[in-house]
Amino acid sequence: MSSMQGRAFAAWSAAQLARTEAALAQWVGLGAPDALGQAMRYAVQGGGKRLRPLLVLAAREAVAGESDSSAGASEAALRGALDEAALRAACAVELIHAYSLVHDDMPCMDNDVLRRGKPTVHVQFGQAGALLAGDALQALAFELLTPEGSAIPESVQATLCRLLARSAGAAGMAGGQAIDLASVGLPLDEAHLRHMHQLKTGALLQASVMMGAACGAPEVGALAGLVRYGESLGLAFQVVDDILDVTQDSATLGKTAGKDAAHAKPTYVSLLGLEAARQCAQNLHSDALAGLAASGLRDTVRLAALADMVLLRSN
Amino acid sequence: MSSMQGRAFAAWSAAQLARTEAALAQWVGLGAPDALGQAMRYAVQGGGKRLRPLLVLAAREAVAGESDSSAGASEAALRGALDEAALRAACAVELIHAYSLVHDDMPCMDNDVLRRGKPTVHVQFGQAGALLAGDALQALAFELLTPEGSAIPESVQATLCRLLARSAGAAGMAGGQAIDLASVGLPLDEAHLRHMHQLKTGALLQASVMMGAACGAPEVGALAGLVRYGESLGLAFQVVDDILDVTQDSATLGKTAGKDAAHAKPTYVSLLGLEAARQCAQNLHSDALAGLAASGLRDTVRLAALADMVLLRSN
Repeated sequence: MSSMQGRAFAAWSAAQLARTEAALAQWVGLGAPDALGQAMRYAVQGGGKRLRPLLVLAAREAVAGESDSSAGASEAALRGALDEAALRAACAVELIHAYSLVHDDMPCMDNDVLRRGKPTVHVQFGQAGALLAGDALQALAFELLTPEGSAIPESVQATLCRLLARSAGAAGMAGGQAIDLASVGLPLDEAHLRHMHQLKTGALLQASVMMGAACGAPEVGALAGLVRYGESLGLAFQVVDDILDVTQDSATLGKTAGKDAAHAKPTYVSLLGLEAARQCAQNLHSDALAGLAASGLRDTVRLAALADMVLLRSN
Repeated sequence: MSSMQGRAFAAWSAAQLARTEAALAQWVGLGAPDALGQAMRYAVQGGGKRLRPLLVLAAREAVAGESDSSAGASEAALRGALDEAALRAACAVELIHAYSLVHDDMPCMDNDVLRRGKPTVHVQFGQAGALLAGDALQALAFELLTPEGSAIPESVQATLCRLLARSAGAAGMAGGQAIDLASVGLPLDEAHLRHMHQLKTGALLQASVMMGAACGAPEVGALAGLVRYGESLGLAFQVVDDILDVTQDSATLGKTAGKDAAHAKPTYVSLLGLEAARQCAQNLHSDALAGLAASGLRDTVRLAALADMVLLRSN
């Protein structure tokens, strides 16, 4: 990425983050009893890279770029509705991510007290409060995707719910966490580790890309390229996560460092060694970019920049 | 209800329960890692009155009864798709109900070890297993409502997701549980108690009726009648629950009896006394039937029988 592209991406990214934060501030906790609303907002606000929302919004722009630019009024209205759908999808994936962190931090799971530099939700609001806040955030994700009386086509609403539900459930994120739980202290080969991570973190990252794409009408070939991009990026994210866990301190990470080793969890670093893990992340990054090239989509510069961000991040 | 109507309802109910159990057995745990799938199935199978699925299916039949009976082939296909949508909705509400029980029983909430006469999920699968099973059951509910390549109209899929998400979330079930949590040991007047129960149990019972209705095209007046039915039935259910907690033993209930008083929870019985609580349940039952009459729908005999079931149940 050239420095001019870098500045353009930074500006785009800042604008999208502002939209996403404003939308989350508006929607999260709305209509909730006081204590529950506070816990939900605490879980969602003030931190995180918002990688998943950015993936949704960048994928939406990549497929929107393919539409006719000389569209009429009704097409412009549809375009606005699909932009709104993408913003809702961006918030919905973030809510699923946020709820998973809340539950994952609880004493019966990872028992973590620090997250993004702040006390975790169960430390702040009690375990019952954290349990309920997580449950309510998951429900809210699907509520955001199905606004009543909206111009968002109901076919898009249904597709977004389908993609999100699959990636969050037993064959996605929750399934990956169950495998993770069952794997502590066990010898795991790379194929099993990869499968676990594809479910645990890959599925939701992949779904972010697909949900953005669902706010448009990409051709089959373009979709296949985005699938490859999403898969590679999802796995690269986890490999980099494993590397950061051993190379960064808690302050930089904003969460407890070194906890994989402390919990005897198998990781890419423990399995491959640090150098081979770094090479693996590089290869996955190249594969993600190859997916974008294969998609034939013209407007993929932001998706490429997000792949760079995943590889080069320090927390 | 005459004894002939009673036999017809019993036959209908048995047939619908068989369909629902078969569908749940087919769908729950599919594609899940072993341990997670087992915990999910354990949470859902073998017990419960399945009141919510029966409400969905009875409401679907009430609104389907209004359609033209001399329908052509394409209308017959649509009717089949809407019947499938209702079965999926019936399972989805039951999954939300089941997940809420799993999380509610956990040590940080009610710390209950017995449910439907069996050890609770966290006793059987550990707390982390119970947490994940509940999370995965909630996601599965939305997955069931959005099957890919199905003949179910996407507008119906989106509406079902909307109704379910709202009733499960912060302005529904999860919100009610948060209020419940915050109210232990506090003096609560009847208005606050009613509000809590309308969210905690009423919202999902009400949504069951509305989701069944969404698998058809009832007129505004019919819908208003069903809303009144669902609201009254939902509240009656909780009043009867409070009565049973003090009048039945644990063996009959299939869960720990007397726990409201043990936890110093405000109930209709503690607030009104037993006799007035019974009268309150009777009044709500009458109001539910008045809602059915006001709907103008012809085929409401099963919904009426379900209102009787709520009032006359012993567990």
